[in-house]
Amino acid sequence: MPPSPETPRRIDPIRPTDADARGIARALLTGARTAALGVLDPATGAPFVSRVAFGLGPAGVALTLVSDLAFHAGALRADPRVSLLLGEPGPKGDPLVHPRLTLAATARFVATDAPERAALREAWLGHHPKAALYVDFADFHFVRFEIASGHLNAGFGKAYALDANDLKLQS
Amino acid sequence: MPPSPETPRRIDPIRPTDADARGIARALLTGARTAALGVLDPATGAPFVSRVAFGLGPAGVALTLVSDLAFHAGALRADPRVSLLLGEPGPKGDPLVHPRLTLAATARFVATDAPERAALREAWLGHHPKAALYVDFADFHFVRFEIASGHLNAGFGKAYALDANDLKLQS
Repeated sequence: MPPSPETPRRIDPIRPTDADARGIARALLTGARTAALGVLDPATGAPFVSRVAFGLGPAGVALTLVSDLAFHAGALRADPRVSLLLGEPGPKGDPLVHPRLTLAATARFVATDAPERAALREAWLGHHPKAALYVDFADFHFVRFEIASGHLNAGFGKAYALDANDLKLQS
Repeated sequence: MPPSPETPRRIDPIRPTDADARGIARALLTGARTAALGVLDPATGAPFVSRVAFGLGPAGVALTLVSDLAFHAGALRADPRVSLLLGEPGPKGDPLVHPRLTLAATARFVATDAPERAALREAWLGHHPKAALYVDFADFHFVRFEIASGHLNAGFGKAYALDANDLKLQS
């Protein structure tokens, strides 16, 4: 029976994490080509959300490629705490039924001369071949995301709190 | 001539706002059915991004409908400063070429007994007819967004800083 409009619903919105939830979250991580990146505006402390390219590198590390010209690049250098929303609604149906995953993470810039950069670059160009046009420009940098936890919403009433292990990809 | 990979590009990434930019931004506002909502986690001050339904009410007011069970509802009550990312990438082409708009706004909860609620409800159900199933549940509330400014990215090298007037819709 659906709840009555007049009675507040007393339900715990977070379900116990199971293999299905882990599978949906990992599929979102593997499939995402973009993310909505939330950072803190260094001038005000307010949130700022922008779209960034997203992909996985060696051993499943979450990555983006940013230009120093982007607002979020300066914000990440001032405070590396980020939130990433993965999972784009499809063109049809109720967009809030489409699964999406919010990650809490710390952003780490990869130095241009870091030994790991070559492998990240190769993996990135596999996902984002058009990035070959600008990946080596001096103002572009890879950023790794160290994921602390996740919040999966797999549709109405299907919310899960995930830890870093739940989100670890077998590579 | 494209910039050399070795030479940092010294360009101002923000273009002067023109009628085209205003038109793209207003089309994103009018067309969006969802948004990536950035709030501050009350426990840590870190950003948190989630997907919310989005639509315009009377006189072009930007709206969402939130449940008190959602994490962002508590965050909005603790600090009303938000960022909203509008504009979903299509299924084809480079998703970073697709225009998107970041809004800086303040969230205002609409009281259940506010005189304006009936008109907001009617407009909302016009955009989101399936919300009729839960719009009157006691834990659901309309939230108005007072928009302070916007950042439009209309594709590589096409960034614009917009003020509240640039984003005002003729109604």
